[in-house]
Amino acid sequence: MTRTAITGGLVVNASDSLRAAVLIDGETIVAVAHEDSDLVRRFCEDAEVVDATGKYVIPGGIDAHTHMEAGQDPTTSSDTFETGTIAAAHGGTTTILDFAAPLVGGSVLGAVERYHDKANGSCAVDYGFHVMTRDVDATTFAEMSMLVDQGVTSFKMFTAYPGQWYSTDDTIFRVMRHAGEIGALVMMHAENGLVIDVLRDEAALRGDTAPVWHSLTRPEALEAEAVHRVARLAEVAGAPVYIVHLSSAPALEEVERARRRGVRISAETCPQYLFLGLEDLRKPDFVGSQFVCSPPVRHEAHNHHALWRGLATGGLATVATDHCPFCMHQKELGLADFRAIPNGVPGVEHRVEQIYEGVVQGHLTLNRWVEVCSTQVAKTFGLHPRKGLLAAGADADVVVFDPNRPRTISAQTHHMNVDYSAYEGQTLPGSVVTTFLRGKKIVDDGQFCGTRSGGAFLKRSVGS
Amino acid sequence: MTRTAITGGLVVNASDSLRAAVLIDGETIVAVAHEDSDLVRRFCEDAEVVDATGKYVIPGGIDAHTHMEAGQDPTTSSDTFETGTIAAAHGGTTTILDFAAPLVGGSVLGAVERYHDKANGSCAVDYGFHVMTRDVDATTFAEMSMLVDQGVTSFKMFTAYPGQWYSTDDTIFRVMRHAGEIGALVMMHAENGLVIDVLRDEAALRGDTAPVWHSLTRPEALEAEAVHRVARLAEVAGAPVYIVHLSSAPALEEVERARRRGVRISAETCPQYLFLGLEDLRKPDFVGSQFVCSPPVRHEAHNHHALWRGLATGGLATVATDHCPFCMHQKELGLADFRAIPNGVPGVEHRVEQIYEGVVQGHLTLNRWVEVCSTQVAKTFGLHPRKGLLAAGADADVVVFDPNRPRTISAQTHHMNVDYSAYEGQTLPGSVVTTFLRGKKIVDDGQFCGTRSGGAFLKRSVGS
Amino acid sequence: MTRTAITGGLVVNASDSLRAAVLIDGETIVAVAHEDSDLVRRFCEDAEVVDATGKYVIPGGIDAHTHMEAGQDPTTSSDTFETGTIAAAHGGTTTILDFAAPLVGGSVLGAVERYHDKANGSCAVDYGFHVMTRDVDATTFAEMSMLVDQGVTSFKMFTAYPGQWYSTDDTIFRVMRHAGEIGALVMMHAENGLVIDVLRDEAALRGDTAPVWHSLTRPEALEAEAVHRVARLAEVAGAPVYIVHLSSAPALEEVERARRRGVRISAETCPQYLFLGLEDLRKPDFVGSQFVCSPPVRHEAHNHHALWRGLATGGLATVATDHCPFCMHQKELGLADFRAIPNGVPGVEHRVEQIYEGVVQGHLTLNRWVEVCSTQVAKTFGLHPRKGLLAAGADADVVVFDPNRPRTISAQTHHMNVDYSAYEGQTLPGSVVTTFLRGKKIVDDGQFCGTRSGGAFLKRSVGS
Amino acid sequence: MTRTAITGGLVVNASDSLRAAVLIDGETIVAVAHEDSDLVRRFCEDAEVVDATGKYVIPGGIDAHTHMEAGQDPTTSSDTFETGTIAAAHGGTTTILDFAAPLVGGSVLGAVERYHDKANGSCAVDYGFHVMTRDVDATTFAEMSMLVDQGVTSFKMFTAYPGQWYSTDDTIFRVMRHAGEIGALVMMHAENGLVIDVLRDEAALRGDTAPVWHSLTRPEALEAEAVHRVARLAEVAGAPVYIVHLSSAPALEEVERARRRGVRISAETCPQYLFLGLEDLRKPDFVGSQFVCSPPVRHEAHNHHALWRGLATGGLATVATDHCPFCMHQKELGLADFRAIPNGVPGVEHRVEQIYEGVVQGHLTLNRWVEVCSTQVAKTFGLHPRKGLLAAGADADVVVFDPNRPRTISAQTHHMNVDYSAYEGQTLPGSVVTTFLRGKKIVDDGQFCGTRSGGAFLKRSVGS
Repeated sequence: MTRTAITGGLVVNASDSLRAAVLIDGETIVAVAHEDSDLVRRFCEDAEVVDATGKYVIPGGIDAHTHMEAGQDPTTSSDTFETGTIAAAHGGTTTILDFAAPLVGGSVLGAVERYHDKANGSCAVDYGFHVMTRDVDATTFAEMSMLVDQGVTSFKMFTAYPGQWYSTDDTIFRVMRHAGEIGALVMMHAENGLVIDVLRDEAALRGDTAPVWHSLTRPEALEAEAVHRVARLAEVAGAPVYIVHLSSAPALEEVERARRRGVRISAETCPQYLFLGLEDLRKPDFVGSQFVCSPPVRHEAHNHHALWRGLATGGLATVATDHCPFCMHQKELGLADFRAIPNGVPGVEHRVEQIYEGVVQGHLTLNRWVEVCSTQVAKTFGLHPRKGLLAAGADADVVVFDPNRPRTISAQTHHMNVDYSAYEGQTLPGSVVTTFLRGKKIVDDGQFCGTRSGGAFLKRSVGS
Repeated sequence: MTRTAITGGLVVNASDSLRAAVLIDGETIVAVAHEDSDLVRRFCEDAEVVDATGKYVIPGGIDAHTHMEAGQDPTTSSDTFETGTIAAAHGGTTTILDFAAPLVGGSVLGAVERYHDKANGSCAVDYGFHVMTRDVDATTFAEMSMLVDQGVTSFKMFTAYPGQWYSTDDTIFRVMRHAGEIGALVMMHAENGLVIDVLRDEAALRGDTAPVWHSLTRPEALEAEAVHRVARLAEVAGAPVYIVHLSSAPALEEVERARRRGVRISAETCPQYLFLGLEDLRKPDFVGSQFVCSPPVRHEAHNHHALWRGLATGGLATVATDHCPFCMHQKELGLADFRAIPNGVPGVEHRVEQIYEGVVQGHLTLNRWVEVCSTQVAKTFGLHPRKGLLAAGADADVVVFDPNRPRTISAQTHHMNVDYSAYEGQTLPGSVVTTFLRGKKIVDDGQFCGTRSGGAFLKRSVGS
Repeated sequence: MTRTAITGGLVVNASDSLRAAVLIDGETIVAVAHEDSDLVRRFCEDAEVVDATGKYVIPGGIDAHTHMEAGQDPTTSSDTFETGTIAAAHGGTTTILDFAAPLVGGSVLGAVERYHDKANGSCAVDYGFHVMTRDVDATTFAEMSMLVDQGVTSFKMFTAYPGQWYSTDDTIFRVMRHAGEIGALVMMHAENGLVIDVLRDEAALRGDTAPVWHSLTRPEALEAEAVHRVARLAEVAGAPVYIVHLSSAPALEEVERARRRGVRISAETCPQYLFLGLEDLRKPDFVGSQFVCSPPVRHEAHNHHALWRGLATGGLATVATDHCPFCMHQKELGLADFRAIPNGVPGVEHRVEQIYEGVVQGHLTLNRWVEVCSTQVAKTFGLHPRKGLLAAGADADVVVFDPNRPRTISAQTHHMNVDYSAYEGQTLPGSVVTTFLRGKKIVDDGQFCGTRSGGAFLKRSVGS
Repeated sequence: MTRTAITGGLVVNASDSLRAAVLIDGETIVAVAHEDSDLVRRFCEDAEVVDATGKYVIPGGIDAHTHMEAGQDPTTSSDTFETGTIAAAHGGTTTILDFAAPLVGGSVLGAVERYHDKANGSCAVDYGFHVMTRDVDATTFAEMSMLVDQGVTSFKMFTAYPGQWYSTDDTIFRVMRHAGEIGALVMMHAENGLVIDVLRDEAALRGDTAPVWHSLTRPEALEAEAVHRVARLAEVAGAPVYIVHLSSAPALEEVERARRRGVRISAETCPQYLFLGLEDLRKPDFVGSQFVCSPPVRHEAHNHHALWRGLATGGLATVATDHCPFCMHQKELGLADFRAIPNGVPGVEHRVEQIYEGVVQGHLTLNRWVEVCSTQVAKTFGLHPRKGLLAAGADADVVVFDPNRPRTISAQTHHMNVDYSAYEGQTLPGSVVTTFLRGKKIVDDGQFCGTRSGGAFLKRSVGS
């Protein structure tokens, strides 16, 4: 059984930062201990000692929103579970939660089975599944309960994408309430897709087909609308709800208002909404297509500021990536019409390092950085206290982070299987040195040293 | 040609209260004139002089929301255009706007034709039509433009009543925008009918079938939801929207927030939301059914207060009645199941007198009373300055109101064709003495002296 | 006795716009009458007929906030009551309300006497007084009641200018409540002067002495603070309050929130806050000093938009000028230190024409223009319905306004006694053609034809 | 050196709840360790083992707001540091922060010296000091810096108590900014004392002298006013501010609004505002006097709900007691006049147990309970990570809490030196079993087993 002691660093959890040693026995943290103690000295006699002096020791990142090898008709996102999770490991993310998507006419249970087949034996980090829903019926309700027993405890619904993933309000309401009763969580893509589709079709009809129209036809007001709506449904259902990829200040305002009414609502944002903007979509030569995702990156500079503020003060609970990479030849499906551009940006590799930028800029404390990238994610999705913290009994998913070793993002050097980076040239102040997954070193000094099947499926419990 | 001078009273318009004479020649007010002037003296030499000393002289009320002889499957509201408009005249209302309802599969144009047939020659006061929409298609859009030319400039849509009047958000959005372009106005019944229907069916299934469940299954949160939603659609459409029968404080808050964002939204409330409550719905022996209407009368006392405050400060623009009377034998269709109770309360007769109660209680000024009962209604619905004010050139729709002659409401004495009153026993501080319709006295001292066909159809222009 | 009929124009009041004739007999409007009537025809036989075809006929403007020949140690504002009121007349303003300022140690009663002496026989338009307060004691309370009897019914207090006009919160509260009891109104200059003075002194100490620092040391947050504070005092006092010269969006938000709580609060803004900005203060060669007034003109473009929106939707009730002109040699008192620049901009001449620009830009309706420039001012300050409307019995203060005759503002052509214009070169779409004061033509086609003593003191009643 | 292992319990920190052993060596926690590990087994061989099976193991409570033997002219609060801290220990509070109060004309430095003399050797738990300010001058500023070096890093100011502790806004602003620069924190008593004193004196003059008038003369609007004001001052100062004893929903709303603007504001509430109300103040026979404190306990039931909601969602950061006991013979100083009733309620003993009630009622999670009672208090006041958490290196202040052993509060059994309890008869669901202070057991099963001088003065750093 491997024993490891990580000493000399600042152990940063969501609630505190301690000079302490993290003591690992096998896959588990057995103690976070005072360095200057017999306990640590004795443990180190029989353990590999990792010197983290001058570094932060943090719980492995958890990315609650990825789409590996995900079908988006007529193509498929370019990272497999293998390439995507290796990239994740490089960036200090040791758990991903991906979305099992039912086929047309297929069941949610079948979707999870299919995704087990895809991911099993192909993941370098731990993983779990949410399930997307459509065509909800009595069978769906029954299968939801079965899935909760299988550790799949979160269900994604959509007010967007009519004809595909869109659900009507009564269905959303009934699923929310059922989820509340069985201890599951509904995740919402909140944009008013019915109206957006009118705007999109009109733009195309007018000949406004460039990538920037992807954003101009998805106004903030229609995100705020849907967030308010699902908050009201959750209010009446008495059930919790989680807004995925929140992108704008007006939508955030609706989350915060609902929380003050006592609604159990929380929200995630993504790096693209904190760092990218409409000017990116306007880049010539179809470069703008690299930034096409939904909700869109947005015009107003005030959105960046508002979202960082929301992350700091709690209106936003988590940061995920909505990682959904497509290579340029795939993006080019939409050369003639922005509506045909596959939606998604790559990001699973850089989230932890990107959000640390917010610490250096004064938006977040060190602890809040860890909380939004890991701890709160674990809590929301029923992985806590197994994941998301450095503490006795937790999985030894540990990242050694050097605050003084910058990283410059580039498609030349990243590990994701995609031929561009949405953040090409972005220089971040700190970077990941070493990543442990359940006690095993899987990345060290920029080298992947794990295995492509080292990740395990995570049965999740009810979140909090 | 008849000439009338109404002298000695306080002429109360929305903007001012003057000691002045209202001089009428034929159907028209030719001047509001200083009493102590040659002008008036000369006019009176050749005119009937009505002494209004100690009284208020106000523009005739305009009720923008009535349902005369309206089908509500399997029955029909109990007032005909004739009985309903005679009742209106008694209460100082000289114009009603009723809803032309297309048949299933029928067109909006056909609906208006059918309603012309019903109303023509049968109205004691002037009248106009809104049109309800469903099954909106290209023909509907074309007919909307034709209807605007015919003076039918407002279209009612629903987020409630799925399977009947409900429209999806994309349809509402497109109609709003089209209406904005042709100078018409969309009126919204704003409650989330999809979710409400889930709650209603569940209640019935549980055996909760008493009238009070009509309200308990229509929570305020679902009215606020729909108001916010349609406000956002109007915001994106750049078009105006009017919320009918707003009933709760949270819904009002959404109207006020939208107005501060610059959205052109206004809202009406009704006497039932200012005076009635959940305790009424709880009255035994099926008396509760008398108060069943949608949105429902509500639990919280704070709603009454908030709505009066909204009327005073502008968040609420108008008061209409949603007059839709059913006799008790009709209400009893829902004896076994509240869902089968015909929806509606009678009210067209008492609105002006009821809202005056708000003046006496200190909620509204005299001018604001006239504004919400008449002037703003005329402006919103394209009748201004022909209606809604006492001024040169306006129709001589004039009401002499005695602030010191109380009225006690009772089904024994009211003129509406319905065998109960939702306000039985309510004593109001002032009452209507005389009503003129375009220069003709049609009610005097409690006696109807007009004709059952004295009312004319009003071609309306674009509102403001 | 002079009789005048103004015919052919669009008579625009706060509540409606009518094609009608305004019939004037002596100083009074005897009727607004239907043009096509015997009434008008007969009246015209014996009256001067003014043809207003193609023009707007509006009630004379009321400027509730002027400072004529007002001491501001060590100098005095450059317009006398005579020059200032002649300028007012040129711009369609027929009433000004000026501020009687007690001397140090002097009483409010004495202040009014002193101002009567200044103004009596020297005003080309009608005038009234507010009184400023300081050193409030029992005598002040007694004199306030006496002043109300004399028709001086509004009292200005300050949270700014410590050591000069500043009052502490307890004094403000007691004056508010007393005013409420005697039917008077408290007007508040709402900025936190205590903290502003700290910032001003520090700026000067640092050597930041240029005009722009006048604004940078008076942050919006400190206006919002004071507005919220006085709104809370009014809330507890149960008395009305009026915020003078509101200048920023955050302050407006506090007014609107208070109104929704039921507080009787209203607010005025001024042209300088709608048209000028920080870039003006930054103009070189001490030109910036021309724009020094308090509260300051502000940085954010969003303030202009928010204030126009507030005027449209009612959060702002009125527009006044805070006219307080100083010539450049006076402004130069502060060449070395912005704190010594006399505070104030000229404006009494152009307000009505400037706010009409807001109609053309789509911010306001015609009626709202009249309301904020005249009708609501009259109501707030107890002049209604004698002033502020064109209706039977009202003073015949009438302005004929040509919407198609532009005006370009310039110090070369204006009539105010000041050697610069804060709006030099601003071109406005419409302009005043003719001004009547109580039935007498005092300006016609750019020529003053009144007398320098034609204005009368106005005893005001309690506002509404 | 004593070694203790607390095993078998649920270790509850602000961020997580773990089944783990807390290993203590001397005064310090050396590790929180996985129970099923060699590490723990070996440690236990040479340690006292405390079995916490079925119990919660939590960090010792920190009460940031106490007034021991505090002068309140003409009397003194009835708990000495000795009696008060022994009571605190019984209730699981191992740190108090008390207020050093300068004498009239005395310096802040002198105040701290005087309080050191009072507390030194007389405290059963650890303690620190805030300092109250008045008569702020240059010396005060200099002494503030010296006090920060001495570990006194928070300064309390007042918008209440004119003539005593009241400071004007400019002083508050300057102290805030200075505090921000030297890393100290300003704590605000936020009520508009100037206006409150008007209301108090008027009530007394009217003969309204009963205890309930203490609350009726301190309306919520005046707390909200002051909270908004100090938030604006902090906004302009760019410095943090902490609101003490926040008592009402409107005040909370202002805190939450300020946080959304980005202001660094946080707030504490107290058990009296969560559990007591106006009906308590109305109790006959002067029993009402027992509940007299400032801000007052309040009328509206909605305040309780809003404050619990604020604690849950973060608008309120901490719970302190404002412990300030007076015996009934002291309260009776105000028999004839509520203004003379000494202000304060006892509470230091019961806070941790009382707030646990909020967990059982579903308002708070277990973790949030620990956070508001201990962890966040430590963070705010510069004691973290020495205090406020169970983690390696922290002081071994540990409480074993039995969630299933109820406590009924009574003056008969409490340990505070006061002859009544404001919560007489309140039964709480859980209670403290054992309290450790820096590794020493000081309370066990209801018996105090520490020493009256076991507490140490805490030099505090800058909070976060």
